Amino acid sequence: MTQRRAEVEAQRIAEAAARAMLAGDQISRAFGIALLAAGPGHATLAMTVGEGMLNGFGTCHGGALFTLADTALSCACNSHNERSMAHHCAIVFLRPAKPGERLTAAARESSRHGRIGIYTVTLRDGAGEVIGEFFGHTRLIGGAVVAEPPPQ
Amino acid sequence: MTQRRAEVEAQRIAEAAARAMLAGDQISRAFGIALLAAGPGHATLAMTVGEGMLNGFGTCHGGALFTLADTALSCACNSHNERSMAHHCAIVFLRPAKPGERLTAAARESSRHGRIGIYTVTLRDGAGEVIGEFFGHTRLIGGAVVAEPPPQ
Amino acid sequence: MTQRRAEVEAQRIAEAAARAMLAGDQISRAFGIALLAAGPGHATLAMTVGEGMLNGFGTCHGGALFTLADTALSCACNSHNERSMAHHCAIVFLRPAKPGERLTAAARESSRHGRIGIYTVTLRDGAGEVIGEFFGHTRLIGGAVVAEPPPQ
Amino acid sequence: MTQRRAEVEAQRIAEAAARAMLAGDQISRAFGIALLAAGPGHATLAMTVGEGMLNGFGTCHGGALFTLADTALSCACNSHNERSMAHHCAIVFLRPAKPGERLTAAARESSRHGRIGIYTVTLRDGAGEVIGEFFGHTRLIGGAVVAEPPPQ
Repeated sequence: MTQRRAEVEAQRIAEAAARAMLAGDQISRAFGIALLAAGPGHATLAMTVGEGMLNGFGTCHGGALFTLADTALSCACNSHNERSMAHHCAIVFLRPAKPGERLTAAARESSRHGRIGIYTVTLRDGAGEVIGEFFGHTRLIGGAVVAEPPPQ
Repeated sequence: MTQRRAEVEAQRIAEAAARAMLAGDQISRAFGIALLAAGPGHATLAMTVGEGMLNGFGTCHGGALFTLADTALSCACNSHNERSMAHHCAIVFLRPAKPGERLTAAARESSRHGRIGIYTVTLRDGAGEVIGEFFGHTRLIGGAVVAEPPPQ
Repeated sequence: MTQRRAEVEAQRIAEAAARAMLAGDQISRAFGIALLAAGPGHATLAMTVGEGMLNGFGTCHGGALFTLADTALSCACNSHNERSMAHHCAIVFLRPAKPGERLTAAARESSRHGRIGIYTVTLRDGAGEVIGEFFGHTRLIGGAVVAEPPPQ
Repeated sequence: MTQRRAEVEAQRIAEAAARAMLAGDQISRAFGIALLAAGPGHATLAMTVGEGMLNGFGTCHGGALFTLADTALSCACNSHNERSMAHHCAIVFLRPAKPGERLTAAARESSRHGRIGIYTVTLRDGAGEVIGEFFGHTRLIGGAVVAEPPPQ
């Protein structure tokens, strides 16, 4: 394969893997999480804060913000078509998110070595302001996410 | 107040605060999160892994596990009747949780100083095996969780 | 072995392992880190903040505080005589430590499963006030820390 | 000031702040930590693993790796000339570093809002391989790092 064809193929695989991760993800479906973009080592998702996502203070539950970030991580860390799961994650909540806000989570790969991958995810509100930052450490669990076509 | 009466009052307040946090928490309600125990600086909650909580690999979504731990944190860090929110949290996923499993999250206070509290939360499966550990750093946000009766 | 003898032996092994970890640790020696107590799954160390440990603001460098906590972790996670290393750690700095202060770090095991152990370490100043909290996730790396006597 | 002059000034301030942070830092001096590059929101430092930095297993102590990363964080988070300190940090140790290796730590700003900044630091060995990743959350503490010339 030429480099250009390899890049096109890596992009196609990353998009298919992200769609596959989301297709089987029941919470993402319930929360209306949508895929905005995906590629090798990255993914951006969006979610609107619904009434069903509020905590006892009337702002978006940390669990919903974590779910959005973790799902973006999941799309990014599976983008190389090697099944991978979050192992250890940290999240900083910088500002509360209110009902009706359209949030995005952009996951980017910092490094991959052996079975371990390191990712950061930035959470933003509708105005583009950062409301949280997430640091994810993933591990390969064996197997492929999507079937690959035979090399030609 | 005698020490004994102060302890009884602190316990009553902690239980009322935990119930208040859960009463307004829409995700906890949707996930069927139940309060097993609460007291000053601690809280234990339970949740059964439902079909709606699964990720693309068919195991409990990290977002649901985080939500359970974060909600236990929320009950524990508000137990002194000073409104408090998670600021920075870390979670380690040790073993996947399967559909139908009854999970518990036990939050305990490590320290409180000024506006900051530090908590650990242990996640266990139905057999009592640890499936995750959570480290939460909270901040006071001002105000009380529940109205206190006038001291007598 | 009776249970009592097993406990005595576990305690003896934990103390020997902690001493062995510190004996080969050059930074702990340079920082004057001392072992106060050790046992199965726990260890408490002490260190006095020296002029050589200060940062650009004249308080104890976060690297020295981390070193003290990480060394306590190391004694605790090797206390079962299975060689183990820190894999992922988090530290919260609650208050600065000043030159001349005698600090302690108390590490306790939260859980162990398979190759992974989870520990918390509390850092206190000379007055016993908490100045930091540390969360450590360790992995077994194979081999024993100290030679065990043959069972009798 | 024109944009170009503002950029030159921001760069000059960032370099002066990084030098000031290191000048007062006793551990960095003892460890031979050197400044390779600094600018607004970023800094890269280097350190050679010495015999005095080894742990009980004969590899670089996690405390020395943390110190290098934390010092890079410190240069980056003070680069805007607002005094700032690490508040909560996480570090993942991916591979051990051996005596004699020349390590680098590259800190980059992810976001700044209000009093809080978020940074990632990548640790690499002499061959450029990633040996650790660090996630730092800082807080402003008031005051300037270096005196600024009056605007002209």
